Amino acid sequence: MDYLLRGTEVLHATVRRYTSPDEHPFFKDLPAPILPAEAYDYPIKKTDININNHIKEIYINKILSAMCVEGDDGQYGSSALCDVAALQALSKRIHYGKFVAESKFLSDKEAYISLIKAKDKAAIREKITNKSVEERLIKRVVLKAAAYGKEIDHTALDQENQKQKISPQLVADIYEKWLIPLTKDVEVDYLFVRGC
Amino acid sequence: MDYLLRGTEVLHATVRRYTSPDEHPFFKDLPAPILPAEAYDYPIKKTDININNHIKEIYINKILSAMCVEGDDGQYGSSALCDVAALQALSKRIHYGKFVAESKFLSDKEAYISLIKAKDKAAIREKITNKSVEERLIKRVVLKAAAYGKEIDHTALDQENQKQKISPQLVADIYEKWLIPLTKDVEVDYLFVRGC
Repeated sequence: MDYLLRGTEVLHATVRRYTSPDEHPFFKDLPAPILPAEAYDYPIKKTDININNHIKEIYINKILSAMCVEGDDGQYGSSALCDVAALQALSKRIHYGKFVAESKFLSDKEAYISLIKAKDKAAIREKITNKSVEERLIKRVVLKAAAYGKEIDHTALDQENQKQKISPQLVADIYEKWLIPLTKDVEVDYLFVRGC
Repeated sequence: MDYLLRGTEVLHATVRRYTSPDEHPFFKDLPAPILPAEAYDYPIKKTDININNHIKEIYINKILSAMCVEGDDGQYGSSALCDVAALQALSKRIHYGKFVAESKFLSDKEAYISLIKAKDKAAIREKITNKSVEERLIKRVVLKAAAYGKEIDHTALDQENQKQKISPQLVADIYEKWLIPLTKDVEVDYLFVRGC
């Protein structure tokens, strides 16, 4: 899987994927873009925060084991392609925390500045947490997983009895246990590094 | 875009993507797999039917121009990544025609054998066509495009007024004008080459 992930990133680096503020590579020694640099409007502070190693470890050891059934179907190539797509999506989703944190910072500068000056990570984490937003997100994830995990067919618009490809509750659990906390890690790290 | 498509296929070839009966590369000079060969149960006759060049031409000249608005947003890298994903999905969907054709052949061997012997392509095309199945498919495509092209949110389960990312009717038109006829091309070619 690392072979495919690195190969994909090498290719994507050459079309300047990782010069975009919302993309973070898993590998470091990637080639330079062959396209000319894009003059991005960089809406957040530039940092080198990149928790992809941690994301990969959690993906392999926690998320995959929660989602997959035991056994070996021999489909190593296509499984690894799915892993690459999933890891890149997770990385993008979690590192969006930087944008979220910047927005939260701007909406309440004074309070954040005093917490950052006090180097109080726990208090920053507490301040960025909005339980009701998280609960709404989880509900939305359940709905999305239920909708996308079924076949949409005009003969079965009432799909109560259709088999789900994946348990919507399991997807919600993965958000609750891993995606939301990892995003918060990025938010806290970003605010800490951001300074005032 | 060819650069990314070829790069992706080189990488995928090494994990034996194109030894699978339902995958067809756009490029010919791809490296050998680094994984050992998989002993596939090959459920159709092996042929070298591959209409990817034609698919690519239609994608670029017809489908993209139907879907995209005029202008240049400078996002060449990410656009090309989307093109690669779309082309691979189109290729897979259209070449599934081989499996569909094999199944149709097996369900009415005698009739197909006489048409194949008579080398009557028009009659084969007519025989594989099932208008009511096509109409159901189109309806289903409209429903799917409408469902997947909206945000799913528990605060707006009634989403009548939500903006669509893409017109469901346009997606249906693309199926009707291009995907269904191209799939039939593959079905007819397959039956013709399949022999009796």
